[in-house]
Amino acid sequence: MQSEILPKVDTTLVGDMLLGKWKDIRLHTRKICEQPEMWQIPGLTHHEHRERVFGQLKILAENGSTAYGFPAIAGGNADPGGSLTVFEELILADPSLQIKYGVQWGLFGAAILYLGTESHHAELLPSVVTLETPGSFAMTETGHGSDVANIGTTAIYDETTKEFVIHTPSRHAWKDYIGNAAIHAKAAVVFAQLISKGENHGVHAFYVPIRDNSGNFLPGVGGDDDGVKGGLNGVDNGRLHFTDVRIPRKWLLNRYGNVAEDGTYSSPIESKGRRFFTMLGTLVQGRVSITGGVTNAQKVALTIAIRYAHERTQFPTHDGTEHVLMDYGRHQRRLLPALARTYAQAFAHLELLEQFDEVFSGRNDTDSTRQDLETVAAASKALSTWNALDIIQVCREATGGQGFMAQHRMVGLRADLDVYATFEGDNNVLLQLVAKRLLSDYSKAFASPNFGTLAQYVVEQVGEVAINRGGLRGIAQKFTDFGSTARSIGFVRDEEHQHQLLTDRVHTMIAKLANELRHSGKKDPAEAERLFNRHQNDLIIAAKAHGELIQWEAFTSALNKIQDPQTKKVLTWLRDLFGFTLLEENLSWYMINGRLTSHRAEAITDYIDGRLLGRLKPHASDLVDAFGLTEGLIRSDLAFGAESRRRESLKKEASK
Amino acid sequence: MQSEILPKVDTTLVGDMLLGKWKDIRLHTRKICEQPEMWQIPGLTHHEHRERVFGQLKILAENGSTAYGFPAIAGGNADPGGSLTVFEELILADPSLQIKYGVQWGLFGAAILYLGTESHHAELLPSVVTLETPGSFAMTETGHGSDVANIGTTAIYDETTKEFVIHTPSRHAWKDYIGNAAIHAKAAVVFAQLISKGENHGVHAFYVPIRDNSGNFLPGVGGDDDGVKGGLNGVDNGRLHFTDVRIPRKWLLNRYGNVAEDGTYSSPIESKGRRFFTMLGTLVQGRVSITGGVTNAQKVALTIAIRYAHERTQFPTHDGTEHVLMDYGRHQRRLLPALARTYAQAFAHLELLEQFDEVFSGRNDTDSTRQDLETVAAASKALSTWNALDIIQVCREATGGQGFMAQHRMVGLRADLDVYATFEGDNNVLLQLVAKRLLSDYSKAFASPNFGTLAQYVVEQVGEVAINRGGLRGIAQKFTDFGSTARSIGFVRDEEHQHQLLTDRVHTMIAKLANELRHSGKKDPAEAERLFNRHQNDLIIAAKAHGELIQWEAFTSALNKIQDPQTKKVLTWLRDLFGFTLLEENLSWYMINGRLTSHRAEAITDYIDGRLLGRLKPHASDLVDAFGLTEGLIRSDLAFGAESRRRESLKKEASK
Repeated sequence: MQSEILPKVDTTLVGDMLLGKWKDIRLHTRKICEQPEMWQIPGLTHHEHRERVFGQLKILAENGSTAYGFPAIAGGNADPGGSLTVFEELILADPSLQIKYGVQWGLFGAAILYLGTESHHAELLPSVVTLETPGSFAMTETGHGSDVANIGTTAIYDETTKEFVIHTPSRHAWKDYIGNAAIHAKAAVVFAQLISKGENHGVHAFYVPIRDNSGNFLPGVGGDDDGVKGGLNGVDNGRLHFTDVRIPRKWLLNRYGNVAEDGTYSSPIESKGRRFFTMLGTLVQGRVSITGGVTNAQKVALTIAIRYAHERTQFPTHDGTEHVLMDYGRHQRRLLPALARTYAQAFAHLELLEQFDEVFSGRNDTDSTRQDLETVAAASKALSTWNALDIIQVCREATGGQGFMAQHRMVGLRADLDVYATFEGDNNVLLQLVAKRLLSDYSKAFASPNFGTLAQYVVEQVGEVAINRGGLRGIAQKFTDFGSTARSIGFVRDEEHQHQLLTDRVHTMIAKLANELRHSGKKDPAEAERLFNRHQNDLIIAAKAHGELIQWEAFTSALNKIQDPQTKKVLTWLRDLFGFTLLEENLSWYMINGRLTSHRAEAITDYIDGRLLGRLKPHASDLVDAFGLTEGLIRSDLAFGAESRRRESLKKEASK
Repeated sequence: MQSEILPKVDTTLVGDMLLGKWKDIRLHTRKICEQPEMWQIPGLTHHEHRERVFGQLKILAENGSTAYGFPAIAGGNADPGGSLTVFEELILADPSLQIKYGVQWGLFGAAILYLGTESHHAELLPSVVTLETPGSFAMTETGHGSDVANIGTTAIYDETTKEFVIHTPSRHAWKDYIGNAAIHAKAAVVFAQLISKGENHGVHAFYVPIRDNSGNFLPGVGGDDDGVKGGLNGVDNGRLHFTDVRIPRKWLLNRYGNVAEDGTYSSPIESKGRRFFTMLGTLVQGRVSITGGVTNAQKVALTIAIRYAHERTQFPTHDGTEHVLMDYGRHQRRLLPALARTYAQAFAHLELLEQFDEVFSGRNDTDSTRQDLETVAAASKALSTWNALDIIQVCREATGGQGFMAQHRMVGLRADLDVYATFEGDNNVLLQLVAKRLLSDYSKAFASPNFGTLAQYVVEQVGEVAINRGGLRGIAQKFTDFGSTARSIGFVRDEEHQHQLLTDRVHTMIAKLANELRHSGKKDPAEAERLFNRHQNDLIIAAKAHGELIQWEAFTSALNKIQDPQTKKVLTWLRDLFGFTLLEENLSWYMINGRLTSHRAEAITDYIDGRLLGRLKPHASDLVDAFGLTEGLIRSDLAFGAESRRRESLKKEASK
């Protein structure tokens, strides 16, 4: 064994870092998830699965896991970060449980909390927290997925009766894919166009009872069951529609818009558009906590695949020993970058969660901190949900046919998480929001961008990169090439230069896009649309690069808090692997834009295959051990020695 | 409308090309798949699903769909290509039905056909064809996934009783993930180490009865149910083990190895290794037909996503109209390259299927044609199964939350097809086989490669690319750069240059790998292993590039058969999109290796986004119409106007 000369990862230290600020709630929730009654059972019908999950929600309500985020009046702690922490961990029991919890307390309850006012809190929240009132969050309509501003459902104020009349004008405007709606919800927060005195004040939220205690729809309410889905079959998604359903005036959730008895509309926010986005912005917690959830799912899959890779053999080798899968270069290439990416995502998420808590606890709640939070959450949700699908798939394939068995969890996790890529904001739409924010920041810096200011901007942003006056693309490489791989790689091994290359790419892409789009003024909207569509793909790529940069920075900032030099060394390699993989994926951009010579570009891949993978291999087990996932959370024996035990039986047989 | 100036695709012509040589069997099988009793029903338990699929197998046996590949003595037509065609189309009914059909007739039956001799055919095949004897193909063991040569099950010849004794020595050696094994199989073709007179002659196949007519295991046979899987739950996968199970000598499937009564072993193939690979090679049909199957699944998903994208709106636009999804640049980027890739894969598969039929019908059956077939089938299976997972996922996401509903098929198809990436040969292992073949062809050309011959080889292979004597990497670009995108793209629009760039990459990668690996002689096997692992990832990348080249060539060769100039024009754009996407994905390679300047590299992406997508958009509907999939085969109303009908209801409401 070489262990005496290898650095050793302090798995307790790293484990604590990954547990983050809400460690106690996280560990407490994991204890709950370890109980067999909380586990997903593969092969249930969707009817059985729904009832099982509803029973699990009751357990959570009874043991107090559902109150963290709510005010004292509802029996809660007003701890927004803690509330999200519970959601994030529940994925370890069953993603359906996580989402059903999220529907009840993260969407239905949170809408009442953040869009309602004190009387709503007092009257409605207590029975939401206890699950006495299971509810739905009825925003999405069949005909309007991401386009919430233009939903068709109306809420017309009737001055004569002091009521709102909730109405669905067409099949197009049915509420659809609504969690809890098929069976369990007794009430719903319904989003509708608020119309009073003939004027449409835009989308507002209303509290609407929908079923009686026997589970029958109330008069005027109708619906449908979405039936079997690709996953999450423990959640009863369904459709809802309303035919002139009357609710009292007080059930307008009126924090951002109120209607007086006489029908006069008032709002603390003048602009209709800003009001709409402010209301939607209060729901950012879904996007924040989804990242934490899928990161946990990635940890499960990686723990299984990496431990299995240390036990499983494939083909015999020259000396009669059988190498384990982890010895193979390709296998390392499949699993280790996925591990690095998961660490980066985990650290970025922990920062985001604290950022969320700062805003929603009120400690640091400004327009600007909210906007930053929304941008980072959008990027984070998009990147992490796609990462989860890719990484769980890689892990599944790396365990071969065994990994396809439901008992080993990965296929179920992937199926359940599939829809995470399009719910709570379609990933492509979210990345577009991020890109728009980057462009708007950029344009604030340059009221009228032209080539000279652009170049200057890039110089300011990227600091050390010298600029060639001939044009953006001509930005020259500052560093001289050396002959050998070893020497030419040196400059990117350096943290500052990795950072610079990653930052530079985001800034330069945005600067170029701003330049391309600068002709799309308001004069010719058709031309603006054409230009936008021509560059829409690039916008999304730039937003993705921005999200990756945030992850890299969070990983690096976590590294810099580590005191133990050996642990720091190994995690630095892991961070480098993440950074190098990002560079490698975008190598052509770096070459086209003169940031890397072909020599250096080639050295990046050589360095990954020839150095980093080999260095990290001996630590892969420790790095998944640091996730701290017990047998009750993982529940696949592939991660707990099944293969070794089988191999023992083989050896015993052979020695007979 | 611009339709008068646009070229028009002749969808009948293209449809006929895609139906290929076995058009009649293909259409006949589709008629069967259109019957509701053949459809997959989402939400069944795996028990119900298994019984439903078994019933469907009986329908196929009764209507004669199971005999095509078998000889007249078994009631068949000895039409190998026709037999695979049935398998390929059945995915449209239910992938579980496809795989259960494949287990019974493509594996169990085909093993008796190709590894057995005439007496086996006469005695065993008739009841296999009629499903009177449902059977398993028991090759894989828990402890040996891809490493079939080292399986643990033994078949020891007992001269005293003239019997083989089939035995499982350890838990490691249980047959696992075996289709039909959990419930339905009455017999199995079991792969085991044939041992006679104390000598192991390697892996051979044996016909072994395993259950009586009541479904109970016969004495000495045991097993287990694999339970719920990530998909394909209509197939009853299970485990089998054998404790001194005795079978008569005649049930050795003895085409490639026989044991005389006295225990003397003989074989028409001297080398144990070659014998093993020859036996396995007879099973290539699984890999061939899987590509045809998954291509059909891609066609279903693309038909749904592309038709939906022509009806579904997202956000309102400047003039109050709502654009459909297909108008968005990013949406085109997601769907159109997937469409191009599917066409390329479809044409490549049709060539492969004919190649298979040539060999297995005996019309062109030589060592060399078999080896070529096996190499191309391995590459094709790996590329197509990964493509299918990616493309179905893209289509699912492109239909948003609706696409996650089981009724729209895509989530079910993806879940079922997941295991296609690791069964019938793990994709990574298959690509390694392809790379080894490429390396061995290369080394035949150069008994002792050194730098000079390498360079010469590359010159010969790539013809027009000038070589710089300074080294491989220095190969210079022959073409002069022009200033504008339009002009610099010209040279790759040209078919010959696309071909050259794609071919050159494969050859150069292989030449470089041969050079890297040339020191791994037999002198130092440990060093050889180290070198292999260091370059394993690159080997797999090179094999993938080879597979893509084959697809590009097949697409091009199909194009060149089209007489209709308008159809040819549109399909040429589609082929160009496929070729350009391949170049774009590997742009850094082309730049590092001096094949493309940064100017040209950038022009490739510009050309895709700025020209090809826009040109192809108006034809996307026709290109999926050419797949010819009816409502009974697709069964998602998203592909049949559901969204338009909903929008009509909206307009009616608005006009009130």
